[in-house]
Amino acid sequence: MKAIERYLPMVESTIRNLGLTDETLDRPASYALDGGKRLRPGLLLLAADACGGDWQALGRAAAAVECIHAYSLVHDDLPAMDNDDLRHGKPTVHRAFGEATAILTGDGLLTLAFELLAEPVPGLLPAWQLAAVVEVAQGAGFGLGMVGGQAMDLEGAHDVERWLKVAAAKTGHPLGAAAAAGAWLAGRGEVVPALRLYGQELGIAFQIKDDLLDVQGTEAAMGKRLRKDAEKARPNFVAIAGEAAAAAALQVHSAKALAALAGVDMNRERLTLLVEELSSRTH
Amino acid sequence: MKAIERYLPMVESTIRNLGLTDETLDRPASYALDGGKRLRPGLLLLAADACGGDWQALGRAAAAVECIHAYSLVHDDLPAMDNDDLRHGKPTVHRAFGEATAILTGDGLLTLAFELLAEPVPGLLPAWQLAAVVEVAQGAGFGLGMVGGQAMDLEGAHDVERWLKVAAAKTGHPLGAAAAAGAWLAGRGEVVPALRLYGQELGIAFQIKDDLLDVQGTEAAMGKRLRKDAEKARPNFVAIAGEAAAAAALQVHSAKALAALAGVDMNRERLTLLVEELSSRTH
Repeated sequence: MKAIERYLPMVESTIRNLGLTDETLDRPASYALDGGKRLRPGLLLLAADACGGDWQALGRAAAAVECIHAYSLVHDDLPAMDNDDLRHGKPTVHRAFGEATAILTGDGLLTLAFELLAEPVPGLLPAWQLAAVVEVAQGAGFGLGMVGGQAMDLEGAHDVERWLKVAAAKTGHPLGAAAAAGAWLAGRGEVVPALRLYGQELGIAFQIKDDLLDVQGTEAAMGKRLRKDAEKARPNFVAIAGEAAAAAALQVHSAKALAALAGVDMNRERLTLLVEELSSRTH
Repeated sequence: MKAIERYLPMVESTIRNLGLTDETLDRPASYALDGGKRLRPGLLLLAADACGGDWQALGRAAAAVECIHAYSLVHDDLPAMDNDDLRHGKPTVHRAFGEATAILTGDGLLTLAFELLAEPVPGLLPAWQLAAVVEVAQGAGFGLGMVGGQAMDLEGAHDVERWLKVAAAKTGHPLGAAAAAGAWLAGRGEVVPALRLYGQELGIAFQIKDDLLDVQGTEAAMGKRLRKDAEKARPNFVAIAGEAAAAAALQVHSAKALAALAGVDMNRERLTLLVEELSSRTH
């Protein structure tokens, strides 16, 4: 996506050079971090950049939110969870390395994320970093965070309202936390609420689009098996609400993301483009 | 244990009042946090107290290291890992609540730990808290941290040297991080290396004692099934090194823990007592 492509070379090289030294888990952790859109680290850096922050100092903080995303996929794919065999067109971590290794790899990536967010960075105030740690932990944790959303999702049987609540927790809050962390790390606490809300709405729109693509897309373009939602009786928004309502909801949440930024003192160009790109993507 | 009993009422009440609001995971998380010696939070507070810090301000930081300990037990007990049915005399979390819930509960507890360590505390410098976050993350993470130790342990087939390396990673480094975090949070960076080493050696001694008790203890006193090590072909230090060598190693690592504190400006009374109590405990 053009909105975040400026940041991706740094994201990729930071992830490649994390300096993992675990004799057993180095390979599965690198494998888990390989591939994907890099939406979360891209959004963190885009938010910091839009706020006028020194985004080039934030490579490891950006890698941290990707570590959390990667851990969540590794654990979600486990047999006791979604039991998926394929991710980014490759065998899932537990299929490639075994289930115990997959559990530990996820645990280690989640732990590493907080080390990366908290390590000293010249030019950053420790208080900003602490605020980013809390923000990211809340976005990923119990209750209205990602783990809480996963737990709600396990209970299944969703209506529209519940589907939106799960999407907000699983995807909205982690993306909101990534955008808010970018603002904290740029030292712009006063724009955090706007960027947090932007990210949350962007995340819900992203998840609606995912479900539309699951119904409409082609397997080759997506790099994963489609209509999995139907196969696994996983609640797909299109199946619950219908395609027209899903398309309308995509527009509503995209508009809410943009509205969150209205009147806020920052460069909104790439943030606006990202909303447009995510809602019109084909994979 | 008398060395930490001063701190335990605050630890228990903090854990009971964490304010978990996750509709699905509140019960399993509270269940996972129920019981145990509270050695890690007790050690964090003891270290802060011994350094002259305001330990009574650190209840939630102490609860954080207990959350990490609790998460590690929940994940270790999973069928793909140690496949244990009993913990603290009760069914393990996955036996009581199911495997998916156990995975998510562990993930959530680990995430919550970092939120608790990073939230603002009056009187603490953000830089101290950040240092504590890094310390705890390293003690719990890949490589020489707890997750790295678990991964080494999965590979099995240990000799004495390897057993000690695994014990240092799985138990030594998390305890070293708890003690070091207490020093950081007391604003005493200059004594961190001594307390970190103290905790690491204490942890190795603790693990040797555990293996001695597994061979010598009684099930009623331990609240769990014994000789599990033999049943599961898990490497027990006594089986590898012999009982006399294990008893000698217990003394050596206990002495190293005490030696780490020599000449350091702090109140060593309870830290010394803790070493004695752990090496002479009967359960």
